[in-house]
Amino acid sequence: MTLHVRRMTKPDGRALVLYGHAPIDEGIAPVAPLGDGGPPNPHLRWHPLRCEWIAYAGHRQLRTFLPTEDPLARTVDPENPTELPPGEYDVAVFENRFPTFHGAAHDPPSVMVSTLPARGTAEVVVFTHDARGSLGALPLWHLELLVDVWADRTRELGLRDDVQYVFPFENRGVEVGVTLHHPHGQIYAYPFVPPLAARELAAQREYWENHGRGLLEDHLAREIEDEVRIVHLEEHAVALIPVFARYAYEVWIAPRRAAPTLVELSREERRAFARTLGTVLRKLDALWGRPFPYVMAFHQAPTDGAPHPEAHLHVEIYPAYRMPGRLKYLAGSELGAGVFTADTLPETKAAELRGASIAPVEGEAP
Amino acid sequence: MTLHVRRMTKPDGRALVLYGHAPIDEGIAPVAPLGDGGPPNPHLRWHPLRCEWIAYAGHRQLRTFLPTEDPLARTVDPENPTELPPGEYDVAVFENRFPTFHGAAHDPPSVMVSTLPARGTAEVVVFTHDARGSLGALPLWHLELLVDVWADRTRELGLRDDVQYVFPFENRGVEVGVTLHHPHGQIYAYPFVPPLAARELAAQREYWENHGRGLLEDHLAREIEDEVRIVHLEEHAVALIPVFARYAYEVWIAPRRAAPTLVELSREERRAFARTLGTVLRKLDALWGRPFPYVMAFHQAPTDGAPHPEAHLHVEIYPAYRMPGRLKYLAGSELGAGVFTADTLPETKAAELRGASIAPVEGEAP
Repeated sequence: MTLHVRRMTKPDGRALVLYGHAPIDEGIAPVAPLGDGGPPNPHLRWHPLRCEWIAYAGHRQLRTFLPTEDPLARTVDPENPTELPPGEYDVAVFENRFPTFHGAAHDPPSVMVSTLPARGTAEVVVFTHDARGSLGALPLWHLELLVDVWADRTRELGLRDDVQYVFPFENRGVEVGVTLHHPHGQIYAYPFVPPLAARELAAQREYWENHGRGLLEDHLAREIEDEVRIVHLEEHAVALIPVFARYAYEVWIAPRRAAPTLVELSREERRAFARTLGTVLRKLDALWGRPFPYVMAFHQAPTDGAPHPEAHLHVEIYPAYRMPGRLKYLAGSELGAGVFTADTLPETKAAELRGASIAPVEGEAP
Repeated sequence: MTLHVRRMTKPDGRALVLYGHAPIDEGIAPVAPLGDGGPPNPHLRWHPLRCEWIAYAGHRQLRTFLPTEDPLARTVDPENPTELPPGEYDVAVFENRFPTFHGAAHDPPSVMVSTLPARGTAEVVVFTHDARGSLGALPLWHLELLVDVWADRTRELGLRDDVQYVFPFENRGVEVGVTLHHPHGQIYAYPFVPPLAARELAAQREYWENHGRGLLEDHLAREIEDEVRIVHLEEHAVALIPVFARYAYEVWIAPRRAAPTLVELSREERRAFARTLGTVLRKLDALWGRPFPYVMAFHQAPTDGAPHPEAHLHVEIYPAYRMPGRLKYLAGSELGAGVFTADTLPETKAAELRGASIAPVEGEAP
């Protein structure tokens, strides 16, 4: 499958990129919803005790909240445009109208801690035109196309001087605060390496220097040998609830080879990654026969110009429930001390997910 | 006011401590609810990428979930005991029946990462006998007694060999997962210094070594001079939304002097701390005329035997809402990357809280 791409600029100056399995009509013109709140200008403040940047984007209070019309559907009435133009394409990516990071951010306020303009960018990824579908339900070719899209965004955004880390993610379900139900994810391109990525990379770096091998690659090999926490395994990808999982149904998905980012995945690895991702998401939905809310986070190598042989691309999925009807709340211990408390064991939960029966993830491009 | 204390052991072996402003009747005998799930045996597993301990307590799945009877009310029917005995006292502390940490934890499972028994303890603090009251609504003498209780727990638990950090906290409201509405908090006594405390302490340690003064003490002085983010100020305590706040209404409360733990607070400082805490909680409830859900976390010096001149006791309050009816969800950026995004400014929110009109926090012990 060849990835077809059309890069354009919306009337209000925001980037829009269309992706398809077939060539995209040159006649498609970008659109943008009417009305706006002026140019965004987010800034960063340094937290001197936690030693991390906090992003402030005041205009976001105005952002869309469960609107009655779907801004991620293709425009039908040209007088009332959505975010997407009419026409044939499979996936669309555009700059968020209410971004927490923006390439033109400037002149941060002068306060008693260090500040910076919150450069970088925040993008929305529309997974499919089917407003009632879901990422996991997509056929294999469409999931594989999305892996290509995430890789393309990682490559393109990673080239920017103001981007040190490209972070695709999906928040799914009202339980994690989702305001638009049309299947979509987001990509934050941070002007710094975020704290959790930095911590994981430091651990991987130390292991790499001591062992000459990847920490996660070695761990995955041991998990595969141990079998009990594996959810799905194929030649080029694995899904598991790691032995140190924090959430009850916390699944990690990774290529078995230590590829640093999505960009370095081979065609075979992309297909395996796509099939494994679809399999896991279908199993989560099949478990209790209802859409399972989650946060899905991609962890990959920074795009800071340095080599990162230690980095091993993987996806961490944090499902919101620990039992049917019982959410995992992050409260005193997690938020105030940073100590996660789990009331289930990864071994049990992995067996549950393994046993969830699903239709196989398949389907070639039409 | 003198703190009166009675330490006892429940029939099932758990600790119970009663606290009062007046002497406590020697005839009061400890009680415990009927039925149980056997002795708890939580364990820790090491997360090799995040470099932190995760606590696993499988028996907690069974824990009380919005029960119809109040286990924190004093026992009325001896045939159907609650957690508290009848009699006159003001505050009670007991070991959690479903603890995430337990002094007798033993023989952790052997898995492919390091494990430890989850020693330490988890306590419940019943703030008042008024099931429909709240921490903030308590009179000054009762809040001051609670400061004494938290200090007593810090001292007593801190003496234990298996405790390196004493962490009082309160989760308030269904929005943060609270299952019992009777006003209560908790205390986790961790067998290690938790990651967030460790990070804050490292920053304070570096500042201390470079400047010979406290990081937070200096920051508070600058905030007090700047005025705009101060919520409440008195001679021995301050409440503010710090310039680097992550949550919209994130209030910090601290003694102005850099006391390392609650134990070192003078009588005057305890009273000021109590009045400031009550003032802030009343202002939060007054803001929108409804109980404001929050997580409240105490950050103090570890009890690891080392001196901690760098540590400055403070409370961090994380209110759950960012606007009326709109929760702050922790999602992709916060949970997956560790980057907090705020859509309001501390300056604006501090002015709102300053303006919230409340009855003064006062009242001497009867």
